[in-house]
Amino acid sequence: MQAPRGTRDFGPDEMARRRALEARMRSVLRTYNYREVQTPTFEDLELFLAKSGPAIRDEIYAFRDKSDRDLALRPELTAPVMRFYFRDLKMAPKPLRLFYHGPCYRYDRPQAGRYREFWQMGCELVGDDRPEAHAELLRLALELFEASGLRRYELRVGHLEILRSLLESVGVPRAEQSPLMRLIDKKELGPLEVELGKRLPREKTDRVLRFFEASNVQDARAFASGKRAADAAAHLDRVLSALATLGGDSSKVRVDPTIARGLEYYTGLVFELDAPDLGAEKQLLGGGEYDLSSVFGQPPVAAAGFALGFDRTLVALERAGHAPQSDDRVDAYVAALEAAALGPVQRAATQLRDRGLRVELESRPLPLKRFLSRASQIRARSAVFVGAKEVQRGVASIKLLETGVQHDAPMDAVGDRVASLLQAK
Amino acid sequence: MQAPRGTRDFGPDEMARRRALEARMRSVLRTYNYREVQTPTFEDLELFLAKSGPAIRDEIYAFRDKSDRDLALRPELTAPVMRFYFRDLKMAPKPLRLFYHGPCYRYDRPQAGRYREFWQMGCELVGDDRPEAHAELLRLALELFEASGLRRYELRVGHLEILRSLLESVGVPRAEQSPLMRLIDKKELGPLEVELGKRLPREKTDRVLRFFEASNVQDARAFASGKRAADAAAHLDRVLSALATLGGDSSKVRVDPTIARGLEYYTGLVFELDAPDLGAEKQLLGGGEYDLSSVFGQPPVAAAGFALGFDRTLVALERAGHAPQSDDRVDAYVAALEAAALGPVQRAATQLRDRGLRVELESRPLPLKRFLSRASQIRARSAVFVGAKEVQRGVASIKLLETGVQHDAPMDAVGDRVASLLQAK
Repeated sequence: MQAPRGTRDFGPDEMARRRALEARMRSVLRTYNYREVQTPTFEDLELFLAKSGPAIRDEIYAFRDKSDRDLALRPELTAPVMRFYFRDLKMAPKPLRLFYHGPCYRYDRPQAGRYREFWQMGCELVGDDRPEAHAELLRLALELFEASGLRRYELRVGHLEILRSLLESVGVPRAEQSPLMRLIDKKELGPLEVELGKRLPREKTDRVLRFFEASNVQDARAFASGKRAADAAAHLDRVLSALATLGGDSSKVRVDPTIARGLEYYTGLVFELDAPDLGAEKQLLGGGEYDLSSVFGQPPVAAAGFALGFDRTLVALERAGHAPQSDDRVDAYVAALEAAALGPVQRAATQLRDRGLRVELESRPLPLKRFLSRASQIRARSAVFVGAKEVQRGVASIKLLETGVQHDAPMDAVGDRVASLLQAK
Repeated sequence: MQAPRGTRDFGPDEMARRRALEARMRSVLRTYNYREVQTPTFEDLELFLAKSGPAIRDEIYAFRDKSDRDLALRPELTAPVMRFYFRDLKMAPKPLRLFYHGPCYRYDRPQAGRYREFWQMGCELVGDDRPEAHAELLRLALELFEASGLRRYELRVGHLEILRSLLESVGVPRAEQSPLMRLIDKKELGPLEVELGKRLPREKTDRVLRFFEASNVQDARAFASGKRAADAAAHLDRVLSALATLGGDSSKVRVDPTIARGLEYYTGLVFELDAPDLGAEKQLLGGGEYDLSSVFGQPPVAAAGFALGFDRTLVALERAGHAPQSDDRVDAYVAALEAAALGPVQRAATQLRDRGLRVELESRPLPLKRFLSRASQIRARSAVFVGAKEVQRGVASIKLLETGVQHDAPMDAVGDRVASLLQAK
């Protein structure tokens, strides 16, 4: 009788909050001309094994279908969207700006705030890797959180190429960097120091560790070794400057050279957004430049994007007391006080609905007292009722719950009357 | 590189149409005070084995998770919603009006218009089984299709109790009716006649077959045997009369005593809605009164609902030429004509977005001719650009694509200017 382990049911109040947050974010996405795509809930397992990295691979919700196909409930949506892109959208005019919103899955031990079914919203920008385009993507990420109502959050921006070049320059070839990148991603600098110490002289280990203290592009640039790293630092610099031009609160943005990202498909610019109030589960968004083309045997295409944890964002909002309120009140609670009045109130309900009002129609005739008490219980804005007296006079009674004031309206004008009474308030 | 067998990707244009249809339906659901709930994408397999009937059981998308649990991608949403109800919503004031919208799954051979992942929208009314409440549910079903823009459809309404009592009265006990009900559900009257002929005298078989020709409650009532059937006919009568009072096009409603429904949890009133233009896959909606309480070891509760095939409804709309159009055009396509103007156009884009306008911002400086040709290509409503001349004068140029008329606006007023120019049109 329970929902399966690690999953949740959402009741009407929670769904109203979720939809209200979603609507705020969708209206931002619209102003940036991001357009929605949707891919299946499950995919061939292989799609996620190729370039997702061990953090995701170990937790994939894999299963076998009745024909023994290896499938997976999707752990994330970038690989599916890029599969779709390479198959069907390759010829569309670029840049393409796509977004998605849907459930994702992981198979690990459920714990507080970590579910097996969770929602992600994300964006992919395909076909434009200019710093100005990346800046716009970062601005969009920030604006989604501004629109959410969250006040405390921080966007950290880095570039994998500076980090990778540095590791290479101290003597760790790119092919051997993955285990180190994972430690860096988890901010496990102690174990990282041990690992580096095993293969590097002390001064080189120190150089890497000092790099992690860089807090702006200038500091980071000092560690950039070679042309690729210098280009990366210049790119990062232009991204941040264009981001400042695009506006918004610059105190929410900082350079963080330690960003390594858990997924193996990232290539260049990378970024993460945290809500510090959330403790261990504080990361609300992550993204960057990536390359999944080899998974599909296709030539590379410029691609960057991000995904945000929808559930976690809602938790952050709730903790901060800024959870979206949706006005979910019924405009009119409508009932007959006796059986003879059922027809008139049914017609009244239709009139009200035709005017777009939210109506709860009572199927049973109710005594006035019980009717009014239920009207308060369900927090209706108005109570519309017809009894013997009203039937005789050809009217409906309308009581505004907030003021307690009562009005009459001829049966054929009750819709307009209720609509204008509610509007006037 | 393909989506898994029987699943689909939806691109931006198709998603815009899907969301437009969903929005139309959601606004109807709102006026009936139905509130959204959401349950997990998969459930314990057992939930669907109990009372769903063979039509669904044989096609369940079942799988085993890594801990060897038997799970199923949900084939439908009534059983999950009732699981949620019995677990968490039982104490909420009734009647409860709930709706859902989400993907469902089946595992059968994919064929034209039949997918393994498909979308259902549905409603559950819990705690009210008065005819007036059922009539409102039917009115809601009809109004969802009115709002969808579909013109040709028909709602057929029946009552299982009349059918079951009739079969019982001719000599088929209730416990042995399931195989016959399945034939009736599939409208396979030939095989039904053979089956009946095996166990009944000719005149009784004929009586059952004649019943299927009844086209109104009076005709059907003539076959009602015993009190339960008479009560059922009276209930059906009151439902149809209250439905007429609630308004709408009565030519779209007819009595159909042959409705048997494929699911075993239905108990009383049943109904189906077809779009005749769709041929074999013409059923767009099905529903009725049901009882799932025994699955959860709970006392019965009045419950009725329906589910509509969202994808199929969209197909019906497309075939009829009434697919929802969503205005997906960009309000302003914004670019710099040279690098020095990138900053000003970034600020202009922010101004436009702050006013809620949908903006496509070009990251590269573009020659005017190419910029204007791309503006037409993407069907932008306006093109906003800044070149050397504009930088010098501190203005942006605004070209309205429909009229070709060009305006200038001071840089700090470009947002208001574009907004008012677009509004004026």
